[in-house]
Amino acid sequence: MAGPARASEEGLIARYFAPLAGPGADGLRDDAATLTPAPGHDLVLTADAVVAGVHYFAEDPPASIARKALGVNLSDIAAKGAVPRGFLLTLALPDDWTEAWLAGFAQGLPSGDRGAVEHGALVEDLLVDERHVERDVLPLAARVGDRICVTGTIGDAALGLRMRLEGDAPWAAGLDPALRAELADRYLHPRPRLAAAPAIRRHASAAMDVSDGLAGDLAKMLSAGRTARVATADVPLSEAARCACAADPALIEAVLTGGDDYEILCTVAPERLADFRAEAAAAGIAVAAIGTVTSGDGPPRFEMRDGAERVFAAGAFSHF
Amino acid sequence: MAGPARASEEGLIARYFAPLAGPGADGLRDDAATLTPAPGHDLVLTADAVVAGVHYFAEDPPASIARKALGVNLSDIAAKGAVPRGFLLTLALPDDWTEAWLAGFAQGLPSGDRGAVEHGALVEDLLVDERHVERDVLPLAARVGDRICVTGTIGDAALGLRMRLEGDAPWAAGLDPALRAELADRYLHPRPRLAAAPAIRRHASAAMDVSDGLAGDLAKMLSAGRTARVATADVPLSEAARCACAADPALIEAVLTGGDDYEILCTVAPERLADFRAEAAAAGIAVAAIGTVTSGDGPPRFEMRDGAERVFAAGAFSHF
Repeated sequence: MAGPARASEEGLIARYFAPLAGPGADGLRDDAATLTPAPGHDLVLTADAVVAGVHYFAEDPPASIARKALGVNLSDIAAKGAVPRGFLLTLALPDDWTEAWLAGFAQGLPSGDRGAVEHGALVEDLLVDERHVERDVLPLAARVGDRICVTGTIGDAALGLRMRLEGDAPWAAGLDPALRAELADRYLHPRPRLAAAPAIRRHASAAMDVSDGLAGDLAKMLSAGRTARVATADVPLSEAARCACAADPALIEAVLTGGDDYEILCTVAPERLADFRAEAAAAGIAVAAIGTVTSGDGPPRFEMRDGAERVFAAGAFSHF
Repeated sequence: MAGPARASEEGLIARYFAPLAGPGADGLRDDAATLTPAPGHDLVLTADAVVAGVHYFAEDPPASIARKALGVNLSDIAAKGAVPRGFLLTLALPDDWTEAWLAGFAQGLPSGDRGAVEHGALVEDLLVDERHVERDVLPLAARVGDRICVTGTIGDAALGLRMRLEGDAPWAAGLDPALRAELADRYLHPRPRLAAAPAIRRHASAAMDVSDGLAGDLAKMLSAGRTARVATADVPLSEAARCACAADPALIEAVLTGGDDYEILCTVAPERLADFRAEAAAAGIAVAAIGTVTSGDGPPRFEMRDGAERVFAAGAFSHF
């Protein structure tokens, strides 16, 4: 932790973060934590930094920033078909940080009952354990003919960000306030699809989370000699995104290339699709099939509503 | 990774970091890594951020910054009596980063043969595994009567930092260039005492690494009702530190309270002390007994060379 009040770092940790510590963390009095793995389970590890001015606005509520930092990492865990056991946190603060900000930030992290409410399966999963060694769901394992699936809806966070950056654009100003609030919330609060993990582990040939945009992440998921055809009309949109795109059809590009969705993108063999969708639905998560893995190289081709085919340059997305 | 060239993030990762990836990291093509724990072993996890202007100078060689970031974390692993299996890395760069800087940074990270040379036991330990579940070496477990021990020498990094901040002070200007270089190197390149891990695991009642200064970290290691008496004359000093303190006796305070030592501070029952020192010496690491755990509260008391007793306020240390 950086900042001028380093003298009281231990006091601040004891006050705000030690109450959140799980077993093995020894009340955060030690510089390291201990984890006893469950027999026969692999551990899935991920570390994604979340940076002011890149992944969130510095003026966002601190609890929202904490939830986002945790959520983007939980999303990677979910995409591996794993269930979370815990997290380590490092925090670098600007010189003008306040204790009130820190208290708010800690409020956004899970602990006991609060975690159960705000993070869905997290606390329950802490009582279960990590991924049982059955099979590895990796990107790059998609086979020709596999169906391409996504959870939830795509593009909401990108539109939420666009709305904050250009709030007075006609499409944004014309949206119903409830729909505006929904887009803003999707940008601010990732909803990692942890509940889909068992279905992914059982059925997906490849999986990753959509963090840098559907088009770019799909390109990343396909190995050499594999590409894909996507029917844009099948990409699931929220009511808010549908209204926005109706007001300004050019927004579909932001939907398809924008990031921060934290939905799961995966491929599933055709004969497994029905079971996959049913099991995800039973866990409360909608799955849409949006396209098919084909042989060939080059970026995935998106069939647009007007019948034209489009490709999107790799790396078009930047969080801000 | 933040920065304007996010478009080529995957390319940079593939070029500079993928060649360093170990098993389970899938060539860094995935957002998460998989680790198969060794049966009957606990995992020790730590995450320390290393920040420009706080833990190093922005103009330091990038390979040195990488070694420091890794070293301060390996030091925590060593203090737990564990051996490293691997690391996850996140990197936030300022807007003016260059590819040359990134290439240099990657050079400072271990991979294959280079790791064996620069990081001592690291690569060998990657072939071994994490801590076998025998007993937990925790801070706060020191007993009255235990001897207080430190590895290596204390204060060199603090003097190295002081030298950089006030290089023309008489004590610094009068030092032999080789000794100046030694102090500068100790600040820049932590030497985590990984080879001491087995001896610590076998003999220490409590252990932590000295990152925020000997006096402060010793105070942290003692639980309520425990304090300590330290003979300052027994605190091991390098030749460089001895010369510096001879030129300016007030520097002993920097030695005792300065940070970035990354030596191991531990307590050992008196009847185990000889075995502990012998086993550490056999692993190439000198151990000095500098004091004793006593009952009572308040900060540890340091008996100075002039016979006076001194205490040092908690939290006196800040990295810069």
